[in-house]
Amino acid sequence: MKTLTTISELRAEIAQHRLQGQSIGLVPTMGYLHSGHASLIERAAAECDLVITTVFVNPLQFAATEDLSSYPRDAPGDSRTAAAAGADLLFLPGLQEMYPLGREGVLTSVSVNELSAVMEGESRPTHFAGMCTVVAKLFNIAGPCTAYFGKKDFQQLAIVQAMVRDLSFDVELVGCEICREPDGLAMSSRNVYLSTEQRAAAPVLAQALVAAARSLSRGETSVDRLRATMMDVISTQAIGQVEYLEVVDPITLRPLTQADARSRFFGAVRFGSVRLIDNLDLSELDLDSNAAISQ
Amino acid sequence: MKTLTTISELRAEIAQHRLQGQSIGLVPTMGYLHSGHASLIERAAAECDLVITTVFVNPLQFAATEDLSSYPRDAPGDSRTAAAAGADLLFLPGLQEMYPLGREGVLTSVSVNELSAVMEGESRPTHFAGMCTVVAKLFNIAGPCTAYFGKKDFQQLAIVQAMVRDLSFDVELVGCEICREPDGLAMSSRNVYLSTEQRAAAPVLAQALVAAARSLSRGETSVDRLRATMMDVISTQAIGQVEYLEVVDPITLRPLTQADARSRFFGAVRFGSVRLIDNLDLSELDLDSNAAISQ
Repeated sequence: MKTLTTISELRAEIAQHRLQGQSIGLVPTMGYLHSGHASLIERAAAECDLVITTVFVNPLQFAATEDLSSYPRDAPGDSRTAAAAGADLLFLPGLQEMYPLGREGVLTSVSVNELSAVMEGESRPTHFAGMCTVVAKLFNIAGPCTAYFGKKDFQQLAIVQAMVRDLSFDVELVGCEICREPDGLAMSSRNVYLSTEQRAAAPVLAQALVAAARSLSRGETSVDRLRATMMDVISTQAIGQVEYLEVVDPITLRPLTQADARSRFFGAVRFGSVRLIDNLDLSELDLDSNAAISQ
Repeated sequence: MKTLTTISELRAEIAQHRLQGQSIGLVPTMGYLHSGHASLIERAAAECDLVITTVFVNPLQFAATEDLSSYPRDAPGDSRTAAAAGADLLFLPGLQEMYPLGREGVLTSVSVNELSAVMEGESRPTHFAGMCTVVAKLFNIAGPCTAYFGKKDFQQLAIVQAMVRDLSFDVELVGCEICREPDGLAMSSRNVYLSTEQRAAAPVLAQALVAAARSLSRGETSVDRLRATMMDVISTQAIGQVEYLEVVDPITLRPLTQADARSRFFGAVRFGSVRLIDNLDLSELDLDSNAAISQ
């Protein structure tokens, strides 16, 4: 695996492979790679000739009040994880390389309306525009055939999908299943901040989503009652502060009053200062690989 | 010259040329092509192996109150002009092809802050975001090496330049000099709407900019006095209603109080319902090809 830190180096390297007709897979990340990221890289390696993993903690998607400076970073660990998962190129640009005029010098913003206003967008109103801006930039730098995103950030995936459609990016998006800890907790770079007590309570979020999905699978379609089910589960862990629990259409992300088999369950819960998100739909109840939440 | 109407046809056609290592030039337009557009296509033909002219009256850059439905259209004439100027491909997509879900279904918006707030942006607050969104889409569809824009829409060029920089589009932008009628009027698709009386008065805009630029070249740097010079010239034509007359930095587009040799003069003037814009800097005073305004 080669590690590159400049846009021009990366472009030159990719151009050689493109000339040979190779397919190019991109896995954009903010680093501190865990098994969830590794699963994206492995999938890309199985499907593409050349796999590029990018690690860039993008300041545009953090509000001033958020955890940019404390966001976990581990370049040596990321390098090992990316190489072991099958990445060919690791792109590790500095802030100066991505935004030569600094964060304030970035005048351009790519935003996706409607989809960005709900759920994560309610508490993080500038987050998705920052994310789309850097994803568009990474697409323009790498020119991938296929890009891999985890369903853990399902709203992000839906928004990038809309951006790709509206702006005609010539990129196929692949949404990969959420990787979970044995007790069902969705893997996240932020899990490292959980105290022992918070970590013990955190699986309650996945459990709440599963309980509601199971209730739906047994015929309960009232979102009011499904949400009550989720709340009941969360309330078994007093330290979990619910930010939202939603049942939405998986394409429009619009909140539903009546759920159906396509509906998706979303939750954001704070454990102390650590904010965790998760989501699932009925299909995940059947995944053998998620024994912890399907039983 | 081949005419294509779908994104997939255009991409397939371009891909063949790209595989042969050909350089690709793009001239995005809203059609009703005049000599100014032709000069862009000719420049592209001189510099690129494959020249694509696009004609699409992009609804995203018109406000509800603006002249979308009456914007002049002439596909047969555009085809003749583009072919004669040296275009290899003419891309003429319908609304449905560009925006399959309709204008309201386009959730994504590419905007460039600061640069879009001044001058044209003051009276047309959504215009530049609509323009950037379609230019980003056309870049993604055509994948040009070089794109050609006229300096008539200098603010547009500055905004696209910022977008290309911030989003790392792998496209070189070329700004081409304004083409003028023999009496100095900047060529514009909207000139066709001028009545005989309005057409006779319209060159006053270019004359005002020239008078101010000449005053600057003779040492007058006070923008208040330069603006007064422009106003004096405009006021010789009572039917010209000034919307703005500005002296700005050519990169930041920020209004100046003291002009210097890099400063650029901009004006927007209404003649009846027809709104005309123009701009120039000191270099244009010396252009042999613009005898009408340099004497």
